[in-house]
Amino acid sequence: MPHSDLDFETRVFDKEYITLAERREGIVQGGRHLFDRLPAAFDGVAQIGVIGWGPQGSAQAQNLRDSLKGAVRVTVGLRAGSGSVAAARAAGFREEDKTLGEMFEVIGSSDLVILLISDAAQTALYPQVFEALRPGATLGFSHGFLLGHLADEGLGFPPDIDVIAVCPKGMGASVRALYVQGEEVNGAGINASFAVHQDVTGKATDRALGWSVAIGAPFTFQTTLESEYRSDLCGERAMLLSGVHGIVESLYRRYRDHGMTDENAFRHSTESVTGPISKIISKDGLDGLYRRLDAAGRTVFAEAYSAAYPVGFELTQEIYGEVRSGNEIRSVVLAGERLRRFPMGKIDQADMWTVGAKVRADRVEEDIPLDPFTAGVFCGVMMAQVDVLLEHGHQYSEIANESVIEAVDSLNPYMHARGVAYMVDNCSTTARLGARKWAPRFDYLLTQQAYPAVDDEQTMVDTTPFQAFEDHVIHEVLRVCAEMRPPVDIFVE
Amino acid sequence: MPHSDLDFETRVFDKEYITLAERREGIVQGGRHLFDRLPAAFDGVAQIGVIGWGPQGSAQAQNLRDSLKGAVRVTVGLRAGSGSVAAARAAGFREEDKTLGEMFEVIGSSDLVILLISDAAQTALYPQVFEALRPGATLGFSHGFLLGHLADEGLGFPPDIDVIAVCPKGMGASVRALYVQGEEVNGAGINASFAVHQDVTGKATDRALGWSVAIGAPFTFQTTLESEYRSDLCGERAMLLSGVHGIVESLYRRYRDHGMTDENAFRHSTESVTGPISKIISKDGLDGLYRRLDAAGRTVFAEAYSAAYPVGFELTQEIYGEVRSGNEIRSVVLAGERLRRFPMGKIDQADMWTVGAKVRADRVEEDIPLDPFTAGVFCGVMMAQVDVLLEHGHQYSEIANESVIEAVDSLNPYMHARGVAYMVDNCSTTARLGARKWAPRFDYLLTQQAYPAVDDEQTMVDTTPFQAFEDHVIHEVLRVCAEMRPPVDIFVE
Repeated sequence: MPHSDLDFETRVFDKEYITLAERREGIVQGGRHLFDRLPAAFDGVAQIGVIGWGPQGSAQAQNLRDSLKGAVRVTVGLRAGSGSVAAARAAGFREEDKTLGEMFEVIGSSDLVILLISDAAQTALYPQVFEALRPGATLGFSHGFLLGHLADEGLGFPPDIDVIAVCPKGMGASVRALYVQGEEVNGAGINASFAVHQDVTGKATDRALGWSVAIGAPFTFQTTLESEYRSDLCGERAMLLSGVHGIVESLYRRYRDHGMTDENAFRHSTESVTGPISKIISKDGLDGLYRRLDAAGRTVFAEAYSAAYPVGFELTQEIYGEVRSGNEIRSVVLAGERLRRFPMGKIDQADMWTVGAKVRADRVEEDIPLDPFTAGVFCGVMMAQVDVLLEHGHQYSEIANESVIEAVDSLNPYMHARGVAYMVDNCSTTARLGARKWAPRFDYLLTQQAYPAVDDEQTMVDTTPFQAFEDHVIHEVLRVCAEMRPPVDIFVE
Repeated sequence: MPHSDLDFETRVFDKEYITLAERREGIVQGGRHLFDRLPAAFDGVAQIGVIGWGPQGSAQAQNLRDSLKGAVRVTVGLRAGSGSVAAARAAGFREEDKTLGEMFEVIGSSDLVILLISDAAQTALYPQVFEALRPGATLGFSHGFLLGHLADEGLGFPPDIDVIAVCPKGMGASVRALYVQGEEVNGAGINASFAVHQDVTGKATDRALGWSVAIGAPFTFQTTLESEYRSDLCGERAMLLSGVHGIVESLYRRYRDHGMTDENAFRHSTESVTGPISKIISKDGLDGLYRRLDAAGRTVFAEAYSAAYPVGFELTQEIYGEVRSGNEIRSVVLAGERLRRFPMGKIDQADMWTVGAKVRADRVEEDIPLDPFTAGVFCGVMMAQVDVLLEHGHQYSEIANESVIEAVDSLNPYMHARGVAYMVDNCSTTARLGARKWAPRFDYLLTQQAYPAVDDEQTMVDTTPFQAFEDHVIHEVLRVCAEMRPPVDIFVE
């Protein structure tokens, strides 16, 4: 699936080419100064139906409405009897002005339907959704999960509709919070990818770009719906959730075994990752993080990186293969029935996370250590994901966002505020199932293979992985992306 | 898949009905006194080709040859250039007397082909194997993996052959070692299930039973090929390998956190499970283990059992679902290519297993503690697997063997001699992939859910699971099975 030939034409926005390493990618920069172009982008769309009031649904519905200022009606559709009706009303959506309604009625009356119900609900309800759509309507997603499920079933979308996606590379909460901040700081927002999967009307690209600009994406890059779900599911199952969880659990144990107190072990593992390591990478990239270390720290980093990289690469390849084969999506669908019998328990009651809550309560931000071993392990696993996605032909924009930017600019700051376990306990069912499945794998393989390699006094760690670090193309890619980075950090209540 | 209607007719052996709980199952007891019936069982079979020289292949080929005493030729088939030729020759198989040859030639010249090559090799080579078979031949397996793979691909076996299975419920090493011991103690051997999947000749049942008796199974029970691979893959991915591994890893950490030395924590976790707990269950059942405890120990057991059971049930249901859906088999097939790039590393170099090697070296068998908490966790997870297999309609014989007997009579004694990690590092690729995938899940869920429930001083553990323990049907089933138990324990060099 090489994407070097991906490109698009827009009649409404300004396409720019950026050069990421040796590859040229077309992107659109966003901003509030473009909101007056939205009516043109949504030409032929009298009503946008946003279906669902989860984190993405609530954020996107409000952002779209606020950006469109009445030029296109934005209507929220909820299933009959939904517990979210009150919240949608409180946010200003009302039955009386036709901005709130029963989901299938909203689907049937909208020209653009943005389907932001859970993956499980999409899987269960898609036949009725397809049935309810107007002929010629545009169906939008923020995630390619349903495409993957349809492929597993040997099915596809109805051929007479447009199918597009706009996929914010961050949590719904950030999508709304940064948009609100954007009223004062133009350009604040979460990057997004867009995909045009079916274009019957010839208007699909500008509708997708309009949607992305309207929800506040500072930087919109192109992908395919298939590439999106592969990289998205792989990213959350590897680095973004499971990887970071498995890394900090294994390091916490390691540091305690080496004699640190519980609190100190937590600071050198979790706090170091979600605090200084993420902040520095966000501003200065992975190589910038390395350059912050002194000579002794760099030696420790290089060893830890080299020991962790092979574990990350092997596991991320496994994850990618499970996603591509359809296994991972089938597992999520299978889980539906099981979860009705056995709801997922919380994980943040385990000892480590109780210690974590105390450490966060007493936190002095400036005193959090930048631990070079922790930094090396984190960067080794992160770079392994970059290399896996590169090997599978993903665009640099997608790789940088799914492997690095979403971590350091959206998820890790949230974990820093609330805890890694809390984050895992509170993300989407699909992501949560993935985190529970893969985090222990990262933990075990690091503990069984990476750390013994570092501790082996007879044999030096093979530093081949680190030799590829300093000249890795991702550093240049991240520098270009950083120039388009939103001017404010994400906001966690 | 309820099996209450499974039954069979044998012209050669003596079928007995045993009553397990309220259900009647037909079985055949084995023994050396039946070897003179083997020529009748193999009527029409001039040559048995045993393909492969792994642990099962080498054990079964030798047992078959020794039992048949020349009445039917037993020929080992190996791929050209196989590194196992020398070992097969050393065991007495020779090209010059046509008891050793190239695998496809042996397949083409045999009336019964017992395919004991690895799952990966079966998956890769089955079209050539089917092509090479004589018309009217019988194809035998010791595992239903290939059926599962064919089902994933929408395929089946050639319709003009018999397809049977005999599946020893223990490792190949035990199948041979106990057979050798059986020269002195009639009845020593490993139980087996048998299945008749296709019976074109009308002779499939007696051929399968003859094969089972000839390799030394003291007790052969009936199953279907589908039921076999489901319960077998589920069993090894749950209790038999992953469960026990995840349990002892999590308990070792717990006991250290509670102040035990490394060595003592290892004794109270791993040594307790593979030593006294397994020995007592083998002789006296799960309820017998419970009755060995004093009043305080029983209270600890009941709490640990009740906290661990839900974790075991939830995870074993997940595993069963993944197996039944084909995901687990697809994962193993997918792993083939990945493993050529990244061979699986060893896990027994991690700190815990280094401690374990020292503890085993200094072991005084009688001093190994019977830890009631460890016993409760172990039995809770084990009983959860029993209940999952019951819910999915498996026969009691299969459930008892796949959940309890194979653990305490074959695998755990081997782990006791060599270590749990060594065992995992040295089992089949399919089993090893499963253990690496699922053991960390048991560890994490016990640590995140079961142990915090026990430690919560505000809330008592919900002892509903334990209330079903004392009157559970499995105790009676195990007592009936114990009467047919081999008179010697497994032997580990």
